[in-house]
Amino acid sequence: MSIVIKVGIVGGTGYTGVELLRLLVMHPEVDLQVITSRSEAGTLVSDTYPNLRGRLDLPFTEPDVNKLAECDLVFFATPNGVAMKQVPELLSKGVRIIDLAADFRIKDVAVWEKWYGQTHACRELIERAVYGLPEINREAIKGCQLLANPGCYPTAVQLGFLPLLENNLIQTDYLIADAKSGISGAGRGASVGSLFSETSGSFKAYGASGHRHLPEIKQGLNAMQSSNVGLTFVPHLLPMVRGIEATLYARLTPASQSDLSLEDIQALYEQRYKDETFVDVMPLRSHPETRSVKGSNMCRIALHQQEDSDTIIVLSVIDNLVKGAAGQAIHNMNIMFGLAESTGIEHVALMP
Amino acid sequence: MSIVIKVGIVGGTGYTGVELLRLLVMHPEVDLQVITSRSEAGTLVSDTYPNLRGRLDLPFTEPDVNKLAECDLVFFATPNGVAMKQVPELLSKGVRIIDLAADFRIKDVAVWEKWYGQTHACRELIERAVYGLPEINREAIKGCQLLANPGCYPTAVQLGFLPLLENNLIQTDYLIADAKSGISGAGRGASVGSLFSETSGSFKAYGASGHRHLPEIKQGLNAMQSSNVGLTFVPHLLPMVRGIEATLYARLTPASQSDLSLEDIQALYEQRYKDETFVDVMPLRSHPETRSVKGSNMCRIALHQQEDSDTIIVLSVIDNLVKGAAGQAIHNMNIMFGLAESTGIEHVALMP
Amino acid sequence: MSIVIKVGIVGGTGYTGVELLRLLVMHPEVDLQVITSRSEAGTLVSDTYPNLRGRLDLPFTEPDVNKLAECDLVFFATPNGVAMKQVPELLSKGVRIIDLAADFRIKDVAVWEKWYGQTHACRELIERAVYGLPEINREAIKGCQLLANPGCYPTAVQLGFLPLLENNLIQTDYLIADAKSGISGAGRGASVGSLFSETSGSFKAYGASGHRHLPEIKQGLNAMQSSNVGLTFVPHLLPMVRGIEATLYARLTPASQSDLSLEDIQALYEQRYKDETFVDVMPLRSHPETRSVKGSNMCRIALHQQEDSDTIIVLSVIDNLVKGAAGQAIHNMNIMFGLAESTGIEHVALMP
Amino acid sequence: MSIVIKVGIVGGTGYTGVELLRLLVMHPEVDLQVITSRSEAGTLVSDTYPNLRGRLDLPFTEPDVNKLAECDLVFFATPNGVAMKQVPELLSKGVRIIDLAADFRIKDVAVWEKWYGQTHACRELIERAVYGLPEINREAIKGCQLLANPGCYPTAVQLGFLPLLENNLIQTDYLIADAKSGISGAGRGASVGSLFSETSGSFKAYGASGHRHLPEIKQGLNAMQSSNVGLTFVPHLLPMVRGIEATLYARLTPASQSDLSLEDIQALYEQRYKDETFVDVMPLRSHPETRSVKGSNMCRIALHQQEDSDTIIVLSVIDNLVKGAAGQAIHNMNIMFGLAESTGIEHVALMP
Repeated sequence: MSIVIKVGIVGGTGYTGVELLRLLVMHPEVDLQVITSRSEAGTLVSDTYPNLRGRLDLPFTEPDVNKLAECDLVFFATPNGVAMKQVPELLSKGVRIIDLAADFRIKDVAVWEKWYGQTHACRELIERAVYGLPEINREAIKGCQLLANPGCYPTAVQLGFLPLLENNLIQTDYLIADAKSGISGAGRGASVGSLFSETSGSFKAYGASGHRHLPEIKQGLNAMQSSNVGLTFVPHLLPMVRGIEATLYARLTPASQSDLSLEDIQALYEQRYKDETFVDVMPLRSHPETRSVKGSNMCRIALHQQEDSDTIIVLSVIDNLVKGAAGQAIHNMNIMFGLAESTGIEHVALMP
Repeated sequence: MSIVIKVGIVGGTGYTGVELLRLLVMHPEVDLQVITSRSEAGTLVSDTYPNLRGRLDLPFTEPDVNKLAECDLVFFATPNGVAMKQVPELLSKGVRIIDLAADFRIKDVAVWEKWYGQTHACRELIERAVYGLPEINREAIKGCQLLANPGCYPTAVQLGFLPLLENNLIQTDYLIADAKSGISGAGRGASVGSLFSETSGSFKAYGASGHRHLPEIKQGLNAMQSSNVGLTFVPHLLPMVRGIEATLYARLTPASQSDLSLEDIQALYEQRYKDETFVDVMPLRSHPETRSVKGSNMCRIALHQQEDSDTIIVLSVIDNLVKGAAGQAIHNMNIMFGLAESTGIEHVALMP
Repeated sequence: MSIVIKVGIVGGTGYTGVELLRLLVMHPEVDLQVITSRSEAGTLVSDTYPNLRGRLDLPFTEPDVNKLAECDLVFFATPNGVAMKQVPELLSKGVRIIDLAADFRIKDVAVWEKWYGQTHACRELIERAVYGLPEINREAIKGCQLLANPGCYPTAVQLGFLPLLENNLIQTDYLIADAKSGISGAGRGASVGSLFSETSGSFKAYGASGHRHLPEIKQGLNAMQSSNVGLTFVPHLLPMVRGIEATLYARLTPASQSDLSLEDIQALYEQRYKDETFVDVMPLRSHPETRSVKGSNMCRIALHQQEDSDTIIVLSVIDNLVKGAAGQAIHNMNIMFGLAESTGIEHVALMP
Repeated sequence: MSIVIKVGIVGGTGYTGVELLRLLVMHPEVDLQVITSRSEAGTLVSDTYPNLRGRLDLPFTEPDVNKLAECDLVFFATPNGVAMKQVPELLSKGVRIIDLAADFRIKDVAVWEKWYGQTHACRELIERAVYGLPEINREAIKGCQLLANPGCYPTAVQLGFLPLLENNLIQTDYLIADAKSGISGAGRGASVGSLFSETSGSFKAYGASGHRHLPEIKQGLNAMQSSNVGLTFVPHLLPMVRGIEATLYARLTPASQSDLSLEDIQALYEQRYKDETFVDVMPLRSHPETRSVKGSNMCRIALHQQEDSDTIIVLSVIDNLVKGAAGQAIHNMNIMFGLAESTGIEHVALMP
């Protein structure tokens, strides 16, 4: 018997929103009921996103709690700080929530307020929120009412470090994550810095002195090994639309260094992820390309070690809009509603 | 009751081949049996195309007629001149054929031999072959054994001119098709001219003195109105992977010019394509973007006319690898085997 | 003896402005005195454009007529409609002016006001302004006080058609210019349509029902042959930063068709441009690439004709920011001040 | 009085070769005499590189020692292993040599032979060769006959680490260089991996288990502080033509950590490079973009440190074809021949 989930989206005009739409209109168990956008209310969604012409007849509408309350599930694809103001009422009406922004990702509210520069509007819900990284939190996700969908960089980095930390293999005081993202991660807002003529054919680091995803990543890594990791995280801007690559550096502990070959560590990765549909441990010494996951919900990972070195290099790639946002959100929805996990997100990456 | 079509692919390493694979592994009624490649025989398909990891376990194999003969349908995704040598034997064994190359597209063998620079190896089959543009040839496609899948430029240009010609609206002696294609159209062969560093951030015409798709387009246009069109066709190379845009120019006949407004012509386009799943007539004076069809089987068309001008401007966009190759081939397969036409090719374009 | 020209720039923050700066800091006879920008006044130019670090110590300043009046020459790199308000006062103080915007390009003020949507603020100067296409107007440029620098598309299109029209070779009632531009042509303003994620990997026409450069081009073409040309002009947006390619279509008159081979026409082009430093007539049937002029002031042109066709195809490429804007402006400055024409604009294109 | 240097280039068809040509045709003190290429002998250089049309009339010629021996200086822009076979004869005839390949970069011949997979053909010259990083070796460069021009990654990485090592500030056993390069670094050879359709819109690491530039970088870093550094170096491939960005990570020694603020370290960088024309220490916490050096010989560097961290982050950008190859070679030529160091390489980066 098929379940049809009545779904609403708050904030459908950004890239996360349209990616949700792209995937949800092809999802066999979803009935899209409402898509809100203050700025575009009254216009057809397919006027903004012509890829949806003929596939979605809904207009953007003004946010309306009563309309949203008729949904089984509401996705918030809004800027940080919006969901926290609307979620309590919807939860009280029995609607389940997946927030794709950062409002409920960080458990320590003081840390959240420092990095996001605003006062949290509903601290009491933070503890109830489940951090939606299925590979770690599957059981908690099943029953949750309020899900905090992980950030894009945190997804790629956490999945890359996970087996090293769970197995206590590395020196946790000095981890490095050198991460690179396509420009869609900066969103659809009009800004000079995201213009084609400002970014094409060029590359740079940004946020090198400190980026909001640092505390989210550290919280996740700390939980994996009950440690207090020392992490340096530097994001960079790639001249391409979609894709994140994270190159991770970690020194083996002396014990692991003497006991384990790189092949052994590869085996631990393969074992850890063997039942995960959306994590692909590639053959040892592969070089995963971001295009191998473009438009798909996969995370591909590969391991390297240089001669005479105690450093493990982990290469991890995702599509920031899919596994790093909308795809993972739908994966979480599938788990929350008891569907087969890969329903509607089995698309093969577009390559070339 | 579901039909499962046993499918083989000859020449699976090129971009047309991998695009067939991407779409066919998600097609609910297809059982992929054999994928041949002389150069890559023995290696896993997913080693060349990691987007298929976990989705396709087949290796490339040497071409083997007996293996292919067990299929219901064989796609040829080979260079021009290969299919014509292998098709007769397979046809004789009852296998149906879709050739994605040019071997069977041109009815006048002398024209074919001149433009393709080789002697045709099985002239007797040319007449039997059905030209697979579903919007024109649907009935003939249903029963055909040998289908010639249209070229990429010819698809975009013919669908753009079709309603003008069928309705006798234009002066056929002077048509212009200024067409632009992404670089994937040049194939996956190693050539200096297709290197990233030779093409990125640059644009040029090519084949401006004459291109192989000219006779194919003319044959198609001539059939639409029993005319002998005068066509100038100039292709250009875009610094992007996928997508074709054709800007078409045609002068209205004096009669049409006095009788018909642009709105009337728009209505004729909408009428002509109203039952076509894969042709989208956009609102008048739209500017279709190639990205609105990226990865999808859609052709989007829009009309313009400048002030005090008798010239109709038609803008037509497709994804050269989908509607211009693999997607249209699968559309044809669906028609040949009695499936719903859009089975397995309903993917929404990736945008952004 | 060297002449040093004291130069001011009004509106230095846009792409035309920074390109002027790039070229002028390397120009041996220029002393940059003032660069105005309302929005950035007080900040160093090199903070906005780090390529100028160590080469230009000036800050942006508020526009100040007295400061500008100390210059020999002021470039206006402002939006349309700004120069016309400031030019009269500067002219009256003896400053010579080069306007890179459209304020003084169109002689028929009614046409200008219709296409630019504003009332012209100093109609009396329009007639005095010299249209700065050196290949046509060299003598007038020498003595002029107020120069209207041509638009980017008009430069590429006019130079392409020029020898055909000057020699009365073509049917002027039906010319087509299918032109394509890099995104820098849209300027540095923050707009969703120019974002990397909206334009990368995609292509589209724009302004297909009518674009402001149409009347400028027609005015130029009409002057070449005392005709009233029928021109269809469709611009397109290329996923790259710099470069314009125009593909031009014109039918030979019956007389030219019978009298002249393509080689003869090639000879006329070579003859017409043999003394022009910045127009390169390439070998017959070449395909000029925009990258062959990237960062340089060259226009490269090539001719084609398809079999059994009376249509001449002209391919014309320029860098829209150099020959299409800043480079041509400096070329004009050199002529106005009696310098060798190529002074400071001899840079070889960056390739690859 | 001007000196005119008679120059030859061996291997002028690759990207390093054409970049030498672009810069040398604009160099006021160079007379280009001969450009060899086995594959293109007999054709005009400007047929392969139309940006040189009208600027360089030379054809490619077969390599001919007698012709080369008439030059004052010969650049080798050849694949690794070519120069070492031809250099001895030319040196013996009094020609000075700049090798842009790796033949003479590594002092330990066993290390060279291991990484480059061939036997060195003239070991005796290795010691005589001067490593041409002007910021370190200026005095030795002045009188040298045989100069080994540094690799692209090694230039960006060494200049980034230099002040840290010269001042003994960091723990040298664990340095990380996460470097990213545009595709022109892979050369102009036809290979599937460098096709536009294989690389555009995608990003990946390569050589993560070990890359040839690792021993060159280590040799350089070791010399800066008489240490034996532990270095992990991972290169990545950017979807753009030109540019390298290296993000460097180094832990301060406990002493530096307690004694020095980031501002102090910034001051050391500024002091070290204050007289260097081609190294720009940007303001603290800047994010240098590769486009800010595109086409120019600059290296731009910026420093960062994250909260509560003992790790210094250095961002270093160059144009791999200029400061990473041809521009640095000309800088070295200028020093060798007593010209002002920046002669002919003062071009401002093309931006946008």
